[in-house]
Amino acid sequence: MTRKGKLVANAAGRRVPMVVNGKDQAPYQGVDGFAPADAAKHGPPLRSCRDYPKTGDKRVADLRTALERCGVRDGMVISSHHHFRNGDKVALATLNAAAEMGAKDLMWFPSASFPCHEPVIDLMDRGVVHHIEGSMNGPLGEYCSRGKMRGLGVLRSHGGRWQAIQDGEVRVDIAVIAAPTADPFGNCDGSHGPSACGSLGFALADSIYADHVIVVTDNLVPFPCVPWQIQGNNVDFVVEVDSVGDPSKIVSGTTEITRSPDRLLIAEYVARLLRDSGIMRPGFSFQAGAGGIALAFVQYLKEMMQQAGVRARFVRGGSTTYLVDLLRAGLTDYILDGQTFDLAGVRSIASDPRHVPTSPFTSYNYHGKGNFASMVDAVVLGATEVDIGFNANVVTHSDGLLLHGIGGWQNCLTAGCTILALPSFRDRIPVIVDEVTTITGPSDLIDVVVTERGIAINPRRQDLLDRLRGSDLPFRPIEAIKDDVERILGGPPEKPTLSDEPVAVVKWVDGTVLDTVWRVPG
Amino acid sequence: MTRKGKLVANAAGRRVPMVVNGKDQAPYQGVDGFAPADAAKHGPPLRSCRDYPKTGDKRVADLRTALERCGVRDGMVISSHHHFRNGDKVALATLNAAAEMGAKDLMWFPSASFPCHEPVIDLMDRGVVHHIEGSMNGPLGEYCSRGKMRGLGVLRSHGGRWQAIQDGEVRVDIAVIAAPTADPFGNCDGSHGPSACGSLGFALADSIYADHVIVVTDNLVPFPCVPWQIQGNNVDFVVEVDSVGDPSKIVSGTTEITRSPDRLLIAEYVARLLRDSGIMRPGFSFQAGAGGIALAFVQYLKEMMQQAGVRARFVRGGSTTYLVDLLRAGLTDYILDGQTFDLAGVRSIASDPRHVPTSPFTSYNYHGKGNFASMVDAVVLGATEVDIGFNANVVTHSDGLLLHGIGGWQNCLTAGCTILALPSFRDRIPVIVDEVTTITGPSDLIDVVVTERGIAINPRRQDLLDRLRGSDLPFRPIEAIKDDVERILGGPPEKPTLSDEPVAVVKWVDGTVLDTVWRVPG
Repeated sequence: MTRKGKLVANAAGRRVPMVVNGKDQAPYQGVDGFAPADAAKHGPPLRSCRDYPKTGDKRVADLRTALERCGVRDGMVISSHHHFRNGDKVALATLNAAAEMGAKDLMWFPSASFPCHEPVIDLMDRGVVHHIEGSMNGPLGEYCSRGKMRGLGVLRSHGGRWQAIQDGEVRVDIAVIAAPTADPFGNCDGSHGPSACGSLGFALADSIYADHVIVVTDNLVPFPCVPWQIQGNNVDFVVEVDSVGDPSKIVSGTTEITRSPDRLLIAEYVARLLRDSGIMRPGFSFQAGAGGIALAFVQYLKEMMQQAGVRARFVRGGSTTYLVDLLRAGLTDYILDGQTFDLAGVRSIASDPRHVPTSPFTSYNYHGKGNFASMVDAVVLGATEVDIGFNANVVTHSDGLLLHGIGGWQNCLTAGCTILALPSFRDRIPVIVDEVTTITGPSDLIDVVVTERGIAINPRRQDLLDRLRGSDLPFRPIEAIKDDVERILGGPPEKPTLSDEPVAVVKWVDGTVLDTVWRVPG
Repeated sequence: MTRKGKLVANAAGRRVPMVVNGKDQAPYQGVDGFAPADAAKHGPPLRSCRDYPKTGDKRVADLRTALERCGVRDGMVISSHHHFRNGDKVALATLNAAAEMGAKDLMWFPSASFPCHEPVIDLMDRGVVHHIEGSMNGPLGEYCSRGKMRGLGVLRSHGGRWQAIQDGEVRVDIAVIAAPTADPFGNCDGSHGPSACGSLGFALADSIYADHVIVVTDNLVPFPCVPWQIQGNNVDFVVEVDSVGDPSKIVSGTTEITRSPDRLLIAEYVARLLRDSGIMRPGFSFQAGAGGIALAFVQYLKEMMQQAGVRARFVRGGSTTYLVDLLRAGLTDYILDGQTFDLAGVRSIASDPRHVPTSPFTSYNYHGKGNFASMVDAVVLGATEVDIGFNANVVTHSDGLLLHGIGGWQNCLTAGCTILALPSFRDRIPVIVDEVTTITGPSDLIDVVVTERGIAINPRRQDLLDRLRGSDLPFRPIEAIKDDVERILGGPPEKPTLSDEPVAVVKWVDGTVLDTVWRVPG
């Protein structure tokens, strides 16, 4: 086991393992500190048309047959994507089929996991799955936190997952891609069909770099499936099933704006910040997710944009009905969409050429020639904790339990202005702390913390402070907000009881190890 | 010089060199005979966002600056694409800029060259360009044929060019991509702007696999350039120029149907062949190029489809106004477009989501998991010569001179029914011969030869003969057609006087050497 291996202090002052799941690691060396060795992108195996049907028909009877034809065997890396979110039926079906075939010690490499994947715990207990590298939400995160997983969890951002696959750090043996629409050649589209989920970008790296690629669909159409976000030229086998996912859980249908007065106030502060700082100007851009505060922020900003006659060049989502409204109202030229969060988003991306699917390659990959994230003027994000040094945490809670994945959060930090929009406490636990439990985002990249009790600007951003000199927003030192909350709650949060045994690591966008998640006894 | 190297007889019975431009070669081993070694795709160098502007603005002053920043030096491989055809201004400007910087012995690697590139002859005479690997049309082909080029010409199909780049056979140092529209990040679109040319698919491999990528545009738009067929994440530098090409020569505006009664008859025969054989059935597909016979064929077929109430699933182009008409008339669900040949095609691909740009990867690459070409039910092609064994030639004339490139011709041969539509003689030179000067397509894949003097079906295609039993088309043995023509013209064509010195090789789609082009004295 690697858990007892040597630890080293990295540039963020955190102790991190030198070896993870048998592979040597580089410790975090600062935001832009690490240069990849004089290396090349991973070259997947050469294939030849001589070995594929000339008719283009790659259908096989079922998932098990496809796995057999891919030569599934012990220790392989099997990947899946999370576009169906908590409605996904394919990842588990794949791992179960591999289990029935007697496979052991698999590494499951999802782009994210959800509560619906809880049965993977049983597969880990039975030795079918050795460990998971990928965002673990909920029960799987707790299983990992308790030290029950045989390998270390490896938490990567969406961009970091692309980077790891592209760089050959993770070599995917078999990628299984669940497709709302596909043709017998394996071309896939996410925007149409009974299980439509919008963009399929999170499966793109897997389709390009995996040794073997299986497409699973419940909506087969004659060649060509148009548009094809996943290209059949990368696909080995196509499997038809009754249902790839539960549509009611794939997209929520409605995404809910917060009704909490405190959170509405935070959202309004964020919108005013963009306006007062001059970020909201003709041709600007922003990214906001699908959380309650972010959605409310979009509504406030929309009003301000209309009042000022300002049109954005692009907005980035997680797309929702609120971003689609901006597009339809002529308040943005484009939506650049990494993940489609509701039915309005799905309908829009399926029909409006200004609503453009993106991928972690275009948007987030740090080992490329630039990416979209750093071109966004402002991004509004959440966090579980932020500390007075402006480091932030999104993966663990203050009790030390791993309960969330990173998503695109780390990648978005390179925006022109990175804003954390946070209630100052949750469930009577302060959000602003002396030191975050787990660093997910380094202080260099967190520019503003907006709470209902005031707005703290990172002192590194003197330029922002200057631009906001005339604003009547309630700017305060971050320590003052923290003191307020602690006065109300009767002191800082209890320090969690952590072992010194790593259970997971948090990667930075460049593949270095930023922090360690420690086992929580209990 | 490699010209005097060892020759070996390949599976087509042709003598081919074992070494070409210093690289070991595999001789042709039959249509599907060659399996790539247990090898991987080429991995281009890893890059990092740390080395690119966070603003996404990659503009530099001019082409020379961009070349300098790419570290241009002697012996490099510089690639370009031919979407601007005979109106291209960028390839020559690039080579001239490199010449001014003192570069020598470059290998120019265009996806095709045109008469407008004739000045490259001077660059070869001066030692700036060592040799060309790529389709050579017109003057450059003759220069090569006369043995004046220092290296051997290497003729590849569009799919073979993708294969060679992807497999690392040709490592492109600097790719220069001329873009009708681009943003400062390097995202490119071919369908909009004053120099619109439609699809940019021929530049895609270069953008993905080259060490350095320069985008040159005369129509810069703010990020994001949508759609982006070339992704800025693969681009190093962006250069603005006044004009990337002469629009009047990029697309012809009108593509002309033949008026020759003989050629119209050939076109009609081809259409009737598709109908009588049952290939023309609901959901079928075909590919036809932009030649005069092919265009007339589309018109005849259109009438027959309308009469029979048959709708195609897709048609492949070279798109022209005639294919666009089919789409608009509801006679096909999709156009899958590899190259856009006229203004109607450009307008359609820019605005109609059913008119889909493709690339040599999707359509033609043989070292992938299948490709589109083998899914096409029938393809109508030309040739300079076909022999009584059903081998065909598209690169040399009967006098031995290299005057044409391969284009997608070889790749299309895997269609369900490959039809050569040919006048039986041109300029009093018979087209059907005892043995073709240069084999470009092996007899296994040529199914039908249609001439104004009759239709010859390859005896290997008994299935086709069976399906055509009730047809009143004039089927004849290929030898009978040949005899007819020779009777009229007074005998077979004179054998050309060829040296035994190779000047170029013709690659098969799998990278093996299919035939040799010999120096023509004179």
